Amino acid sequence: MKKIKLVVVGFGVIGRGVIEILLGKKEFLRDMGLDLDVVALCEIDGSVVSGDGVDLGNALELAGKGELNKHKQWSNRKSMDVLEEVEADIVLELTPGDIKKGEPGYGHIKNSLKKGMHVVTSNKPPIALHYRELHELAGKKNLELRYEAAVGGAIPILNLHRKCLQINEIKSVYGVLNGTTNYVLSKMVEDGLSLENALNEAKELGIAEQDPSYDIDGVDTALKVVILANSMLDMNVDFRDIRIQGIRDITLEAVELAKKHGYVIKLIGDVSRMEVSPRLIPVDHPLNVSDSLNAVMIDSDVAGELILVGHGAGARETSSSIYSDIIDIAAGI
Amino acid sequence: MKKIKLVVVGFGVIGRGVIEILLGKKEFLRDMGLDLDVVALCEIDGSVVSGDGVDLGNALELAGKGELNKHKQWSNRKSMDVLEEVEADIVLELTPGDIKKGEPGYGHIKNSLKKGMHVVTSNKPPIALHYRELHELAGKKNLELRYEAAVGGAIPILNLHRKCLQINEIKSVYGVLNGTTNYVLSKMVEDGLSLENALNEAKELGIAEQDPSYDIDGVDTALKVVILANSMLDMNVDFRDIRIQGIRDITLEAVELAKKHGYVIKLIGDVSRMEVSPRLIPVDHPLNVSDSLNAVMIDSDVAGELILVGHGAGARETSSSIYSDIIDIAAGI
Repeated sequence: MKKIKLVVVGFGVIGRGVIEILLGKKEFLRDMGLDLDVVALCEIDGSVVSGDGVDLGNALELAGKGELNKHKQWSNRKSMDVLEEVEADIVLELTPGDIKKGEPGYGHIKNSLKKGMHVVTSNKPPIALHYRELHELAGKKNLELRYEAAVGGAIPILNLHRKCLQINEIKSVYGVLNGTTNYVLSKMVEDGLSLENALNEAKELGIAEQDPSYDIDGVDTALKVVILANSMLDMNVDFRDIRIQGIRDITLEAVELAKKHGYVIKLIGDVSRMEVSPRLIPVDHPLNVSDSLNAVMIDSDVAGELILVGHGAGARETSSSIYSDIIDIAAGI
Repeated sequence: MKKIKLVVVGFGVIGRGVIEILLGKKEFLRDMGLDLDVVALCEIDGSVVSGDGVDLGNALELAGKGELNKHKQWSNRKSMDVLEEVEADIVLELTPGDIKKGEPGYGHIKNSLKKGMHVVTSNKPPIALHYRELHELAGKKNLELRYEAAVGGAIPILNLHRKCLQINEIKSVYGVLNGTTNYVLSKMVEDGLSLENALNEAKELGIAEQDPSYDIDGVDTALKVVILANSMLDMNVDFRDIRIQGIRDITLEAVELAKKHGYVIKLIGDVSRMEVSPRLIPVDHPLNVSDSLNAVMIDSDVAGELILVGHGAGARETSSSIYSDIIDIAAGI
């Protein structure tokens, strides 16, 4: 049995989803020879820390009520201090990232690597904005920095490329990379809703955030394009290199006109063109996915075109990618 | 540089495709630290053998003219004798398989494993008909037996499950698993052809074999269902357990009636139902793939539904899966 110590930074929706899976799959992981032990859970105002393993059931219960600070292992030590003091193998960086500087994830990831800990993250901005620096740091320290969950949620795009398409050179990658905009555009086609009404419905269902600007304006998709460009096509792309056009100006009339001609409008992130823009997609094309699904087309020199469709968001679904990275790293420890 | 010795058994369309990639990607493989060396190429009437490495360029050229027996390293030693005598790390079993007993692949695979060599195959019948026996033999010998190319051609279904969805338990797998029937059904919808005319077109294009019965009658799909059931859902399924209905009775009228109501007819292999049958699929569903594409739906307990679409056949495309298996095995040698 391999004992792996984890630190979880960020105990929001994703972090709690990861811990729920850990509790539910303890036996399954043991059958794989893995004993995953969480030694710290860090939130914005303090942390739950225990070298012998955090009481996770209690943490989930309290966090659900917004009372994690009542946990018996709670102290108001900040995440950066905890990362400095704790001894662990892998840090899961699961905070939401600021689009300007990628903080606080950028600092968390950098310090974890400096301290000699592997990093798994679902946090896009730090990876998109500091790709080279963080990779060079990980390389220098001979550590893994993995972020399958940051692109496409549950869809294993990066790991598929790395582990299943080894002989291939990737020629292009593009697709529907944002669930919120896809939900909105799908509802416009299917239910004849205006963009505003579809967006309100998405907010009520918790699919869209209260301020969904980053999704609607294509910023979220552009971050994913940067990550895909740098990791799959070995480009050296900066966020500012991406031409971005969101879906804010898409009218119901445009959607219905497209439909009449056998097309749908989808927000497409295109890696080789370094572009995010609404495009017409034939109704029977595999990228025409409904609801909040994501779909990615990978064009490679040997396998040809491959399309992956799946859940681009959701705490449980995204955990699949986070565990894929954790299990890979654990295998090498 | 890791030097890996390969034996290629079967130098038909797939075998030649694999060797073309090997010659074209020699540098690429070396950059990965791999030096793949073919020490024998076996055909039905003899073999090209050289412990120092077969002259592959010459073999490709001659095989293209049906004159492999003019190769300077040719002798009329049979594949089974060559497997007995040769020293190699991995045997690529790429012959076409007989549906009754899985020969000659079954014998090739068994003897290779007995001799202590890993096996990679694109050959469905030996795996579908002798799943447990061959796996037990490989396990006992601590050898790898891999067959990504046997299911879904270029689509990495088995490796995706094994290497990217590690935390998931698979609930069901189903989809369009045969390119020939999908081409025929697609042409019936798109061009209004009868089944017979669509099939003739597929034969002319080399998509269908001259006797396409195994494809049209669902046998090929059923073999893939058996392999998926045993390897992804850990079932213990025999080929005779599968209920099989092909597409021979699908009329143009049925296809057009379905189309009028927003559906297409697809031949679906369904692993948990152990069934192959034509089904109605909504036109905007991700399994509605055109041409000779394949599409597989994987439903799992953490990631939820994932759909993979890609080329289910083609020598070059299928090589992507064969190299994925080779590279994995080589990493462990």
